[in-house]
Amino acid sequence: MKITGLKVMVCSPGRNFVTVKIETDKGVFGLGDATLNGREKAVAAYLESHLTSCLIGRDPFDTEDIWNYLYKGAYWRRGPVTMTAIGAVDIALWDIKSKALEVPLYQLLGGKSRNRLMAYTHAQGQDLAETVEDVVAVKEQGFRAIRVQSGIPGLKKVYGVSDKESYEPAVKSSRPVEENWSTAKYLEFIPKLFSAVRKEVGADIHLLHDAHHRLSPIEAARLGKELESYHLYWLEDATAAELQDRFRIIRQHTTTPLAVGEVFNSVYDCHQLMIEHLIDYIRMTVAHGGGITPMMKIANLASFHNIKTGCHGPSDLSPINMAACLHFGMAINNYGIQEYMGYPQETADVFSTSYKFADGYFTLDESPGLGVNYDEKKAKTFPYEKAYLPINRLEDGTLWDW
Amino acid sequence: MKITGLKVMVCSPGRNFVTVKIETDKGVFGLGDATLNGREKAVAAYLESHLTSCLIGRDPFDTEDIWNYLYKGAYWRRGPVTMTAIGAVDIALWDIKSKALEVPLYQLLGGKSRNRLMAYTHAQGQDLAETVEDVVAVKEQGFRAIRVQSGIPGLKKVYGVSDKESYEPAVKSSRPVEENWSTAKYLEFIPKLFSAVRKEVGADIHLLHDAHHRLSPIEAARLGKELESYHLYWLEDATAAELQDRFRIIRQHTTTPLAVGEVFNSVYDCHQLMIEHLIDYIRMTVAHGGGITPMMKIANLASFHNIKTGCHGPSDLSPINMAACLHFGMAINNYGIQEYMGYPQETADVFSTSYKFADGYFTLDESPGLGVNYDEKKAKTFPYEKAYLPINRLEDGTLWDW
Amino acid sequence: MKITGLKVMVCSPGRNFVTVKIETDKGVFGLGDATLNGREKAVAAYLESHLTSCLIGRDPFDTEDIWNYLYKGAYWRRGPVTMTAIGAVDIALWDIKSKALEVPLYQLLGGKSRNRLMAYTHAQGQDLAETVEDVVAVKEQGFRAIRVQSGIPGLKKVYGVSDKESYEPAVKSSRPVEENWSTAKYLEFIPKLFSAVRKEVGADIHLLHDAHHRLSPIEAARLGKELESYHLYWLEDATAAELQDRFRIIRQHTTTPLAVGEVFNSVYDCHQLMIEHLIDYIRMTVAHGGGITPMMKIANLASFHNIKTGCHGPSDLSPINMAACLHFGMAINNYGIQEYMGYPQETADVFSTSYKFADGYFTLDESPGLGVNYDEKKAKTFPYEKAYLPINRLEDGTLWDW
Amino acid sequence: MKITGLKVMVCSPGRNFVTVKIETDKGVFGLGDATLNGREKAVAAYLESHLTSCLIGRDPFDTEDIWNYLYKGAYWRRGPVTMTAIGAVDIALWDIKSKALEVPLYQLLGGKSRNRLMAYTHAQGQDLAETVEDVVAVKEQGFRAIRVQSGIPGLKKVYGVSDKESYEPAVKSSRPVEENWSTAKYLEFIPKLFSAVRKEVGADIHLLHDAHHRLSPIEAARLGKELESYHLYWLEDATAAELQDRFRIIRQHTTTPLAVGEVFNSVYDCHQLMIEHLIDYIRMTVAHGGGITPMMKIANLASFHNIKTGCHGPSDLSPINMAACLHFGMAINNYGIQEYMGYPQETADVFSTSYKFADGYFTLDESPGLGVNYDEKKAKTFPYEKAYLPINRLEDGTLWDW
Repeated sequence: MKITGLKVMVCSPGRNFVTVKIETDKGVFGLGDATLNGREKAVAAYLESHLTSCLIGRDPFDTEDIWNYLYKGAYWRRGPVTMTAIGAVDIALWDIKSKALEVPLYQLLGGKSRNRLMAYTHAQGQDLAETVEDVVAVKEQGFRAIRVQSGIPGLKKVYGVSDKESYEPAVKSSRPVEENWSTAKYLEFIPKLFSAVRKEVGADIHLLHDAHHRLSPIEAARLGKELESYHLYWLEDATAAELQDRFRIIRQHTTTPLAVGEVFNSVYDCHQLMIEHLIDYIRMTVAHGGGITPMMKIANLASFHNIKTGCHGPSDLSPINMAACLHFGMAINNYGIQEYMGYPQETADVFSTSYKFADGYFTLDESPGLGVNYDEKKAKTFPYEKAYLPINRLEDGTLWDW
Repeated sequence: MKITGLKVMVCSPGRNFVTVKIETDKGVFGLGDATLNGREKAVAAYLESHLTSCLIGRDPFDTEDIWNYLYKGAYWRRGPVTMTAIGAVDIALWDIKSKALEVPLYQLLGGKSRNRLMAYTHAQGQDLAETVEDVVAVKEQGFRAIRVQSGIPGLKKVYGVSDKESYEPAVKSSRPVEENWSTAKYLEFIPKLFSAVRKEVGADIHLLHDAHHRLSPIEAARLGKELESYHLYWLEDATAAELQDRFRIIRQHTTTPLAVGEVFNSVYDCHQLMIEHLIDYIRMTVAHGGGITPMMKIANLASFHNIKTGCHGPSDLSPINMAACLHFGMAINNYGIQEYMGYPQETADVFSTSYKFADGYFTLDESPGLGVNYDEKKAKTFPYEKAYLPINRLEDGTLWDW
Repeated sequence: MKITGLKVMVCSPGRNFVTVKIETDKGVFGLGDATLNGREKAVAAYLESHLTSCLIGRDPFDTEDIWNYLYKGAYWRRGPVTMTAIGAVDIALWDIKSKALEVPLYQLLGGKSRNRLMAYTHAQGQDLAETVEDVVAVKEQGFRAIRVQSGIPGLKKVYGVSDKESYEPAVKSSRPVEENWSTAKYLEFIPKLFSAVRKEVGADIHLLHDAHHRLSPIEAARLGKELESYHLYWLEDATAAELQDRFRIIRQHTTTPLAVGEVFNSVYDCHQLMIEHLIDYIRMTVAHGGGITPMMKIANLASFHNIKTGCHGPSDLSPINMAACLHFGMAINNYGIQEYMGYPQETADVFSTSYKFADGYFTLDESPGLGVNYDEKKAKTFPYEKAYLPINRLEDGTLWDW
Repeated sequence: MKITGLKVMVCSPGRNFVTVKIETDKGVFGLGDATLNGREKAVAAYLESHLTSCLIGRDPFDTEDIWNYLYKGAYWRRGPVTMTAIGAVDIALWDIKSKALEVPLYQLLGGKSRNRLMAYTHAQGQDLAETVEDVVAVKEQGFRAIRVQSGIPGLKKVYGVSDKESYEPAVKSSRPVEENWSTAKYLEFIPKLFSAVRKEVGADIHLLHDAHHRLSPIEAARLGKELESYHLYWLEDATAAELQDRFRIIRQHTTTPLAVGEVFNSVYDCHQLMIEHLIDYIRMTVAHGGGITPMMKIANLASFHNIKTGCHGPSDLSPINMAACLHFGMAINNYGIQEYMGYPQETADVFSTSYKFADGYFTLDESPGLGVNYDEKKAKTFPYEKAYLPINRLEDGTLWDW
């Protein structure tokens, strides 16, 4: 089989997505997700201008060789743009191979390791009361695991809390919205929030929380410690992890499980975190992590250190990436949980999927490949609109981690 | 002062360059280099589609805040595409500030720390004899430091050796050229090469060598050890450095000085290498390292650990980056050496520079800012042509580091 | 531009200050602060007898080279006298450069990274009740952050608590006052103090505390742990830090943030504290840390490790150092907080400043350079009077850390 | 007994010395050496302006308490100026106590641990031949251990080599002499030098060499390795030791014994070097190390790690310090060697000593105290003349370690 073409399609059915379609001389094609929220065009250009012509004529079954060709052959390695472009190609190649062999993708990755895949979703509110209420509401929808974020007293606009019905941090505009932040106010509030939430919902539900890289290691350690009695499933992105040893301090002080990785793009971003047992969940998502090929290796390394997966999965990655995560999660032994926020109807109209979600769990059927279809015609009716994730400033104006 | 516009210009006067021009309401403008060899369009798209509108209206003097705005504000951090885009903006902003204050850029970075800046260039040959001859020829041109690469007996085409008069690894075509490799043949040959070269040129010339990421740590350790008596200035890219602790093995076995970093984009790519004293030269170049702002921080960290700079500087980065490296190098105490291969005449016609090169050394004059002009009209006569760096395979076909 | 002279001026408008004035052939001059409380004359002699003649004729813009000339050229490196002398020269040179270029100093250090700079001041009392009262009073003055020190039951005279209206530990006399100390009494009392203070002032104010080097690591660990629920902004000088690894024990036991550094003079005094993430705030002040040149490097290193600045700034450093700290703090991303105790009126009469303080925050205007003037004539009316910081003994007479 | 006065006397009999005389109500007085080459006046001011009045009335026998009073009571700790001032006081107090008890000082430090104390001196020459000749000459004078330094081919003026008969790096002038340096040229030459020297003088003489802080760790490692077969007694100041872990790299590569410490002023400057067994000789000298009191503790720590002493002892410290080093060396078990360059006649006229030097060894007699007299009258005929140690620049003008 030979690759005959690669198409990069950008659409905005509710939000922006970059989709890759790899075509072959046998008629089988594969889909990949190349969405990098707020930097879509850079990935699209990387694919169109630099990768497409390299792939024509290659045998799409050679996933390992092609991945190395793109990763090592780029010379300039790593980083979100590069790895998302490679990831989209790799996902599409695995889609092709499993379609060609007429099996669901997970069969090529080791078969079925479980029946269903637990997901967590988001609950949020402008204040404590509203947030507790939303947690209850989300629990009643059947979710077994809920990420809880709330407005912070004294702060106008905070990550994870939306005015709109569906949460979407990226805003369509010519520049990022500026939010504000006070770690002191946040740290004061969060333990109270979880005290109230846990009291309301009882022990029989997983609660998660995302600190979104904003804390220093010692602040994260304090938070982890003060949340211990509420038994979180995980505390996410407790500190920015560019230096992985920042997590040593946190780990030393608290038994709250730690999750990190939505901004990672390669095993090298988390290798130390793993071999020193500094985390409990690795949150790289398939598209941003460079595809199925490297994610299998990363999950393998994680398994040696009792680390489970917890793939990043907000609505800013398309259902193609969601499907890739689910097949990946189905096959490995150390699956943990999958983030899931649902999709707006326009998105669902463009991307139709065979995976099913019900009662807090995903299931996969026997559809070959990823089991996702992309309606190119409909997609064209939703042209790209520039959007940005917010930026974040401290109260004195200091540029801070968002 | 306010930024009024950002232009991204791609041209190919001999080879491809991406140039950023930031304009202000006071008429002062700044230039930055955004060239990422073989991935030019991705950086251009990153800048045009995602950064331009964020910068309009900003005070160009706020380099630290803008850098953090672009770095932290991207959310998806690090990597060559992102950091080269940010680097180009940062260089242009420093160009603006030093032009506005009517001083050469180095004055804003600490003033003059030396009179002149030593450079090294490349010598090469298809075999040992031709290489020795070229080293002698290059030495006679006045160079004090020469990187020596050679064809390897039994290998058809090897990194660092060119058929053409001027060495240029990137080839204008629709896909990468494939070269081949045998570490065994290479390791057998290189000590003989340096024995012959050192014998021919004597002790009074700096010899450098680039292993181009192709060795395992223990192979690199063997090579470093076998080269000790030829007293290399440095052994470059001894192993691929994605895991920085790979260098511990090399360091343990040899006193040959080690240089690395042309593929690094942030301090986090070399932090461990530095604090463990594992390297002697950090080779990040200003444009790829995210600009003047982070490079000053990186050089400072390096200085605590006896590490000097040795900026990557082949012809695939434009004279704008070269000027940025020279001003940076002029100001810091721990300047080491600058790579320099000259530029084709077409390039020199588009980019006119105030820095001078003679007798193995660069000098800077009192021109304000970077001291580089870009002839936009002439540049347009050299339209972009797709080009790729080669890829590399072992003799059995295994995809290998190039 | 050439340096034509260096004047060292010692005056005592309320307290002793050593001021350096560097003059140039262009009429521009720069001011530096060389005050080392209780050791003023040693620094003055270092400058007058050993540095002045070295600087005449040098280009004042060459800050990096001159700094290295003074630091490496001294041969006998580091320590408070040497580094304060060098620091004063470096501050004056940066004052010259920014005045000559007609920009506020922060513009040469990266521009504005925030709008305003939070400060903390001191509250104190002879006992718990008086201290709580003073905290409330200070809070009502608009301070957002308050360092709380108190008399300890059973101890006659303790650091940080003054009989006089304005706190000033240095006493004008022929030898140091002797205070007394009991770590046991202190450790018993402090948690009660903070319990009472936090109860009184609520969560919305930053509380700081200074243990002033008097505890062993394990005592500091106990204190940090017992203060955790009062959420200190920082615990300062938890133990004497001559061996930096003393902080490992403290760090292991408590999430109370740690600040240290007012007695440090070089990056080598805190390098291990930083790279092991053992502290959260580095408290070196610009004058004692060797000036702007090294402090920028130190702040950069700190930034990689989530460490913020918190410059030492009691009234025993002149408004020149305060201005240097503020410009430095304005430019860097990882500014934390600035210590500020105000100045007696006589001091304000001699040193007029363009920085403003209101409502707990400093602001800077567009005045070029540091924005500080020194009235030489008025200064001469306040001649130097010998003064000493106290010494400290345990109840059995053992000489202890003050 | 009470201290009644402290006199600080600066004289220049051949070179500058700062001498402290502490007087008591019993008529016994003590002498201390406060010389800090090129920074004499700063130490003198530290003593006169800040320490004198604190000591009046104290019991001079309380050496431990007074040392802590001066060290901890200064608040601003460490560094050459502070520690040399304290060191001079401490030496004078021990001189008083041993004179009052009518015993040689070593009796108070543990008595006699050996009969005689081996010294090393300097040999030097403008080139290899001259240096070999001088080594032979020095050997014939009876020295058992010789530090060998030589002019380097291609460098005009190098540390350790003098035009004058007696070697003296400090030059009387208004600013430092500038020397130049090339590590490459130095490293090329030194192994050849030692090959020639060892061949000439045979195995039965100790050869030492001083790299004077100019090498990076890896360069020092190379040098140590290439000198191994010449069996050096030690390689001194292999790299600047502000970060002590720089010595790990050197230690890893070579068995050449390592000595360091002439610029250290406290145990904290070498604690890591000791507890990690990174050095073999600690070269702190008594006056600069803060006196007899701390040096006994430092020698004790050294003894746990098989480290011997090798006190810095060029002619820029007075015979008072030399006597202090010898009494100290006589008493401890882990004495190694003493540097000794002799003194010009003028110096010997001012300072008369009871220690004897003959045949490569020092001996001490039964004179009480240090056994040194200072002729105040004669000293006054040699007034202070400003002098500086040189500074050092690389060939491109970079300020380098001298």
